[in-house]
Amino acid sequence: MLHHASQEQLSQRELELHEKFERARQAGLNLDMTRGKPAPAQLDLADALLTLPGTGQFLDDSKTDCRNYGGLDGLPAMKQLFAEILGCTREDVIVGGNSSLTMMHDAIARGVLFGVPGGDQPWGQQGTVRFLCPAPGYDRHFEITGHLGFELVNVDLNEDGPDMDRVETLVADGSVKGIWCVPRYSNPTGITYSEEVANRLARMKAAPDFRIIWDNAYAEHHLGDARQAVPDILSACRDAGHPDRPLLFTSTSKMTHAGAGVSAMAASPTNIADARRHLAVQTIGPDKINQLRHLLFFKDLAGVRSHMAKIAAILKPKFDLVQEILERDLGGKGIATWSKPNGGYFVSVNTPDDCARTIIDLAAQAGVKLTPAGAPFAYGLDPQNRVIRLAPSFPPIEDVRQAMEIFTLCVELAAVRQRLAG
Amino acid sequence: MLHHASQEQLSQRELELHEKFERARQAGLNLDMTRGKPAPAQLDLADALLTLPGTGQFLDDSKTDCRNYGGLDGLPAMKQLFAEILGCTREDVIVGGNSSLTMMHDAIARGVLFGVPGGDQPWGQQGTVRFLCPAPGYDRHFEITGHLGFELVNVDLNEDGPDMDRVETLVADGSVKGIWCVPRYSNPTGITYSEEVANRLARMKAAPDFRIIWDNAYAEHHLGDARQAVPDILSACRDAGHPDRPLLFTSTSKMTHAGAGVSAMAASPTNIADARRHLAVQTIGPDKINQLRHLLFFKDLAGVRSHMAKIAAILKPKFDLVQEILERDLGGKGIATWSKPNGGYFVSVNTPDDCARTIIDLAAQAGVKLTPAGAPFAYGLDPQNRVIRLAPSFPPIEDVRQAMEIFTLCVELAAVRQRLAG
Repeated sequence: MLHHASQEQLSQRELELHEKFERARQAGLNLDMTRGKPAPAQLDLADALLTLPGTGQFLDDSKTDCRNYGGLDGLPAMKQLFAEILGCTREDVIVGGNSSLTMMHDAIARGVLFGVPGGDQPWGQQGTVRFLCPAPGYDRHFEITGHLGFELVNVDLNEDGPDMDRVETLVADGSVKGIWCVPRYSNPTGITYSEEVANRLARMKAAPDFRIIWDNAYAEHHLGDARQAVPDILSACRDAGHPDRPLLFTSTSKMTHAGAGVSAMAASPTNIADARRHLAVQTIGPDKINQLRHLLFFKDLAGVRSHMAKIAAILKPKFDLVQEILERDLGGKGIATWSKPNGGYFVSVNTPDDCARTIIDLAAQAGVKLTPAGAPFAYGLDPQNRVIRLAPSFPPIEDVRQAMEIFTLCVELAAVRQRLAG
Repeated sequence: MLHHASQEQLSQRELELHEKFERARQAGLNLDMTRGKPAPAQLDLADALLTLPGTGQFLDDSKTDCRNYGGLDGLPAMKQLFAEILGCTREDVIVGGNSSLTMMHDAIARGVLFGVPGGDQPWGQQGTVRFLCPAPGYDRHFEITGHLGFELVNVDLNEDGPDMDRVETLVADGSVKGIWCVPRYSNPTGITYSEEVANRLARMKAAPDFRIIWDNAYAEHHLGDARQAVPDILSACRDAGHPDRPLLFTSTSKMTHAGAGVSAMAASPTNIADARRHLAVQTIGPDKINQLRHLLFFKDLAGVRSHMAKIAAILKPKFDLVQEILERDLGGKGIATWSKPNGGYFVSVNTPDDCARTIIDLAAQAGVKLTPAGAPFAYGLDPQNRVIRLAPSFPPIEDVRQAMEIFTLCVELAAVRQRLAG
């Protein structure tokens, strides 16, 4: 334990680590652990899409010519597949374009411009409005609400979801209009929301135009056989008398080809009707050929799951290796803790307070790019400057090994130096 | 000439027409001339897309893996192709998703939420703001600005573009923030803007945050060899000292598969930078695989043009037939005038004042669906109730013949009855 080391022991260790660091620095590596991008081998698994829907294939199972205009909210079979992924009915679903992030942005932008069902006024005309950002969380979520004029409020993300005592206190103020949630294998800590948290989100007293943005981005992205159940937020809110509170989102982006997939939103009939009213003005409808392509590729939910098992077979060794090196190099030293996700795309490391930026700088000097410190927090500011997000999906496994060894070295080096200085 | 007919001649003609109408009504036809949709034969021409980009084809010519995330505004080659279609440079272009209508909506929604370069305030915070709607025009354009809170102002669309005397008078009021333009083969009258109109649009005194929405939807949609030149609005505005005034749009939707194509916007560097700043929050970037698919299909501008010549070969006989029947049945009768477009998707008919709704109702009774009266005007209200839009692209040519014969019958019947009543 670093905590019990003498000054002399610390100095000695600093020297060893510094030498290793210098050797790494001189090796001139160029490794990137910043982005939650699928590896080429994952993308290869979906390459059948490159020749789909196939010669003469342009009718869906309801005989719609997918090559022509028509259809505002998706093919019936595509709605059905997303309904099964999200645990709702086909009628709850609107199919979107290639980006669920865009669907979320647009849903919130509509609230700013026009308001949402239950509200008296557009969010944009209510003076100061706030949005809750469970952190560590997904930077691009927080940016959407920051950009659209909300004041962002960090809330601690615990092992079972956001700190609900804090959330309940905050939403008692009617200026709080929503909360960002990644309910399964959250980005970046990998936690899954508990039933209890979902029920408290559903039941709590909040503004009538309060919305839960329930981004089930990793709905089918398990790393092992332990499929963590995700709460049914639509039913929970309906049962609690707040049927219009949740807006659910998901996409195929990290299933098939990232950025060339299909996205979806699900919500109450009132929210869906409201969204359709605006979408009828905004769009001619989403790309039906790409929906058909994905339907022919997946066939059904079982097809999605067998595909995702193949994806997991590629990802799991990388995630296992990350755990192995973290445990080997940092275990028992009292320096860091880290998440052990059962799915998703990230591992989150808590380093000593005030060390994250230093570690990320050191790693960069040694040729390892990491997600900027603070990214998982509102306004990009980690109040304790200690969280680092690791994204092991994209690099080849040998790069993951090298990058992780440099990372753990930098963590320990920063921790030892802090101790020496303090 | 109906004008010179006696009451007796009119009564006799009414009787003949009424009998023909009753026979048509009893035939129980079901014909649809409402929508500017491509015919299946047009879509067939692009069916190579159904198996593109093809096995192992996922790199663009700059070696980008189009299957993965990355790239906010389109592949370089896609930008280049759209630049050639729009007559600008690659740097002026942002590639979008499957709908240029969405790109236009979003550009205007950004102006409402955030303002546009040159403006002091978001459009949404300036009190009453207005948008000019050259009419007859495209209903979905007008709906976007109506929905987003603008007061819509009809301006006559002449043979060479909007009535510029009127436009110049209106835009002298700083509350006017933009004008909708379809510069080539305008929907529905088929006119093309003159250089003179474009220069006046470029030079006129308008609010610094005034925008010309230049929807070049029919940029390559010629019906014959006479390619009407379209003014270069980007250069005209730059030369006039208003480089940020125009926003150009186009798409492949009526070239390949409608609703499954690629769209683009072009504008000044300042406007492009402003759009990118917002798009970086709204989207992960447009579908690159679909861009690659279209690039492999078209290859280059010559490929676009040879494809569009095949499309024209399907459309032209329908448009010729429409002209033939209009001329045969209504020519010289002093009842109606109509457009004779060299491209685009529509024919616009001016019937006697106060007759459009009656004619559309009669046609519906006889089994021919027409675009609702008023659709081409702001708020869906034709102040003279006389314009009818015909869309002959989708039905088979025999249906176009039947529909047109019923249409001309209904026009004459309504005109004769009006005359008798008056």
